[in-house]
Amino acid sequence: MSLNSIFQYFVPKDKKFFPLFERASKNLIDIAEALNELVNNTDETKRAELTKKVEDFEHIGDDITHQIFLELSKNFITPFDREDIHALATAIDDIADFIHGSVTRIDIYKVNPGTGPIKKFAELILQGCIDLHAAVSELKNLKNIRIITDSFVRINSMENQADYVFDRAVADLFEFEQDVKQIIKYKEILSALETATDKCEDAANVLETILVKNA
Amino acid sequence: MSLNSIFQYFVPKDKKFFPLFERASKNLIDIAEALNELVNNTDETKRAELTKKVEDFEHIGDDITHQIFLELSKNFITPFDREDIHALATAIDDIADFIHGSVTRIDIYKVNPGTGPIKKFAELILQGCIDLHAAVSELKNLKNIRIITDSFVRINSMENQADYVFDRAVADLFEFEQDVKQIIKYKEILSALETATDKCEDAANVLETILVKNA
Amino acid sequence: MSLNSIFQYFVPKDKKFFPLFERASKNLIDIAEALNELVNNTDETKRAELTKKVEDFEHIGDDITHQIFLELSKNFITPFDREDIHALATAIDDIADFIHGSVTRIDIYKVNPGTGPIKKFAELILQGCIDLHAAVSELKNLKNIRIITDSFVRINSMENQADYVFDRAVADLFEFEQDVKQIIKYKEILSALETATDKCEDAANVLETILVKNA
Repeated sequence: MSLNSIFQYFVPKDKKFFPLFERASKNLIDIAEALNELVNNTDETKRAELTKKVEDFEHIGDDITHQIFLELSKNFITPFDREDIHALATAIDDIADFIHGSVTRIDIYKVNPGTGPIKKFAELILQGCIDLHAAVSELKNLKNIRIITDSFVRINSMENQADYVFDRAVADLFEFEQDVKQIIKYKEILSALETATDKCEDAANVLETILVKNA
Repeated sequence: MSLNSIFQYFVPKDKKFFPLFERASKNLIDIAEALNELVNNTDETKRAELTKKVEDFEHIGDDITHQIFLELSKNFITPFDREDIHALATAIDDIADFIHGSVTRIDIYKVNPGTGPIKKFAELILQGCIDLHAAVSELKNLKNIRIITDSFVRINSMENQADYVFDRAVADLFEFEQDVKQIIKYKEILSALETATDKCEDAANVLETILVKNA
Repeated sequence: MSLNSIFQYFVPKDKKFFPLFERASKNLIDIAEALNELVNNTDETKRAELTKKVEDFEHIGDDITHQIFLELSKNFITPFDREDIHALATAIDDIADFIHGSVTRIDIYKVNPGTGPIKKFAELILQGCIDLHAAVSELKNLKNIRIITDSFVRINSMENQADYVFDRAVADLFEFEQDVKQIIKYKEILSALETATDKCEDAANVLETILVKNA
């Protein structure tokens, strides 16, 4: 990390990490859009297709993460601190995993995903992924730092909203749902969605760290 | 990390990190005391005030954590290894988050927090935070290493007790509580409290690492 | 990390870390074998003995982990990157913790562990631990890299199977189990077992990183 800072004046413009991170964060938008289509669709066949689509995007994300880790292992010099590259790649991968996890649960628990809180979560997650992609795409030149700072302000506020939606939704389940199996099923799905928003915030925190070190 | 060790003979007495860590661990005592008052109070209005107080302390903790991360990004030379500063700040922040999380659940699930296991957890957590603060305050001069080693022996033993209290309490819920909603609610609250004690142990483990490297 | 790479040509053959890692991964096989005996045994007294045995192995694992961390703190030069030593030791320790956690839950929730999914998990975990030990034992000379790469291919495939077994088992509980307490109990046990397989994959990922850096 410290050696990196010393050497960074000699680092040629990175052609490896930035394109991979842009692909990874763009893939998050794709997966979050599929999630939104899924929770707003009432047709079972269409939902099954969208579940499959989310799964495919998750595999694409896995491949990109794997490539980032490989590049990290092969390159002594990196465009920003190794620990931050690792943390950012991990957070992006986790977002995809938890979106995929929530969709798998909707599928195998055979529940209707078209509830208010789940739709709200799908919206919040998509907004978070769009903001994250904007910030990640700006990393490579750091010309318009405002885009990055605005993104993580919005992501932090989104995550606060998500906490509130989760707490409220679970309290409502306890109050209004009589079938305890349904309570457990929905709680598990909401919990995966809420963790996806936490991971969005983790990614935003790494971006803030990178910015402070390099700006 | 290694460069740090080389340079540490030239580091002027740190004036940034130690005071921040002392404030962070003192804030944990405040939040743990508010938790204890809350679970031992039967008055609803008073409890609502204490819930608000825990929330306020959690925000104060967030600010301190944020300042530690900012200092970490700005300073090339640190009083102990960067990874350990990061891990200690994260563990302290997590303790506050999980205490706050348990209090939020008590509030929105509308349960009586005055049960034996919850009161016991509040006590254990306060004791852990007092021990942690004692150890953290000693970090800056390392004159009385015994204070640190004694603290983490006590924190480890506290965490073992907490595991036992949790397992016993959950087993009792399954055995004696007929209302499954209540089982789920209490299990969630106990789980947040138990994670707070785990994070106390994480913090103690970081302190041990720092001690071994520097003593 | 970078200094390490520079100095590694001068590192005498490591006599500290490799033997500790071999003991740690061998201990995982012992604990996983005890788990298998336990879930395949219907005798209560015998099961109680095996529960105790799992606990003892978990303590042995704790001691080895602690020794690895101590060596890490004391040694400036390490046979592979410090962060990877830390991550591998942590993953191995976590595997033991989650096996132990699942056995504790079986015990205190008073459930019959002899179900199809739990037996399948015990098998998968044992296979993962055997593969992990083979790979870890090969680390010290890196002569037969194929043993390591084959191991992590198998561990990754095992973890995918485990995800499927978990999702299927939980969906079946919701569909066929009427007693919600039983659903919650089994879900908690399966969740601990599933996390043990996740930690196996974490360990395999660290091994892959080490290989890429050093091979």
